[in-house]
Amino acid sequence: MASSSSSSLINSQLARSPPAIPIPTPPLTNFKIGLCQLSVTSDKAKNIAHARSAIQDAAAKGAKLVLLPEIWNSPYSNASFPVYAEDIDAGGDASPSTAMLSELSRLLNITIVGGSIPERSGDRLYNTCCVFGTDEVGRIGIGICYDIRFPELAMIYAARGAHLLCYPGAFNMTTGPLHWELLQRARATDNQLYVATCSPARDTGSDYVAWGHSTLVGPFGEVLATTEHEEAIIIAEIDYSILEQRRTNLPVTKQRRGDLYQLVDLQRLNSH
Amino acid sequence: MASSSSSSLINSQLARSPPAIPIPTPPLTNFKIGLCQLSVTSDKAKNIAHARSAIQDAAAKGAKLVLLPEIWNSPYSNASFPVYAEDIDAGGDASPSTAMLSELSRLLNITIVGGSIPERSGDRLYNTCCVFGTDEVGRIGIGICYDIRFPELAMIYAARGAHLLCYPGAFNMTTGPLHWELLQRARATDNQLYVATCSPARDTGSDYVAWGHSTLVGPFGEVLATTEHEEAIIIAEIDYSILEQRRTNLPVTKQRRGDLYQLVDLQRLNSH
Repeated sequence: MASSSSSSLINSQLARSPPAIPIPTPPLTNFKIGLCQLSVTSDKAKNIAHARSAIQDAAAKGAKLVLLPEIWNSPYSNASFPVYAEDIDAGGDASPSTAMLSELSRLLNITIVGGSIPERSGDRLYNTCCVFGTDEVGRIGIGICYDIRFPELAMIYAARGAHLLCYPGAFNMTTGPLHWELLQRARATDNQLYVATCSPARDTGSDYVAWGHSTLVGPFGEVLATTEHEEAIIIAEIDYSILEQRRTNLPVTKQRRGDLYQLVDLQRLNSH
Repeated sequence: MASSSSSSLINSQLARSPPAIPIPTPPLTNFKIGLCQLSVTSDKAKNIAHARSAIQDAAAKGAKLVLLPEIWNSPYSNASFPVYAEDIDAGGDASPSTAMLSELSRLLNITIVGGSIPERSGDRLYNTCCVFGTDEVGRIGIGICYDIRFPELAMIYAARGAHLLCYPGAFNMTTGPLHWELLQRARATDNQLYVATCSPARDTGSDYVAWGHSTLVGPFGEVLATTEHEEAIIIAEIDYSILEQRRTNLPVTKQRRGDLYQLVDLQRLNSH
């Protein structure tokens, strides 16, 4: 039973500032996504070759969008990040990981959400996600790992018209079982969009033991495809046409209490 | 791995307007909560006597806070609501349900979050939750059923210093298995507070078949106590001292990107 009384004074549009952008019609409504839950070694060249092969596999199985894990070219440790970091802006030999992604995206005519790699920019290190490809596969919001803990980020992406949120992430053996699936399903349900996550495969011998369980969640919070902790390539179907359907059946976006609260997207507001 | 770079320019305080209120120290830190998942009949006097008895049971088992279901004094149907509705403001004989709650709260020296009942006020009907009792048991945010779908409400309560959110609610046999536990756990995890829900027991012969599964969730999203769909009184322990502990270990409130987004609590802002 809905407890909020409806009234013409309640303008759901005001619950987002700037007002939410209606979800656009994407060039491609139905397509396959590939989630590459990769094993990562200490050999960077091998990691790159291995990711290349996994992306080719996923594309061969029909994936038009491929998602990689967080930190797929380097061991997951503070000691490794500076050693494996690449100068992405310089490109080419200075960034063999992104050069491979860029090349494959062009060759295979697919979009690659390139998980993340350690980036060196000036004297600072970043955990950076690069995206390569076409604009066929919808409006995609990106977060890395811990970003999934912030509902505001997902809500802002939804207000910007996102169809899909991609979170490369490596939750650990404590937060993984507690929160990994929960947070994905919550972001998908609250914002009525798709959520895809991609973790490295688990390596119990490494410093940081990843939970695995890369997953695709639908806009009703339903787990559409998932896996355990071993290396895997998940191929799953996305159908953006159900976004409108879900939002019509459960019209939470039209029921927000713009008289009580407002989420301000400062970046978008200031760019106007 | 946290992907957000830290910087003195990022003021997490600005992510809430007005700024979030630090969680206050409640008079009672450790206490028992009772969730009364009641069977509801078409006999209102019987429903009231039955709720009275359940509250007495819960108090006898040590509960200092008792939560009732959504619509516990009336069948859950649009045809019934106007017939069972009470004039709460008039009180006394005009509202036997709240008169009972008020009396018991005083007699037993407990706080009662009185689920909800249909209320008639002027020529309008409302789905209303009344709270009776002491201020021992912390700062409580209340939502009814569908309100749990709005992350903003929970976030605003958290920013107002809530320790516990109570959602009397009757999800149905579709949304119950899909979303009931998910949303409780998400609100608790994102806001690092307790969430308690209370549903009517399931009656497969009624117009509206409730999911049941009243639950207490802790501030890490963990299910602390729950039940199936039959009538039950859940007694569970609340310990507010772990709120600070969780927030220290996982300091999301201090990591919000006040440079990127701001959630405005219009009611609190306008009351300043």
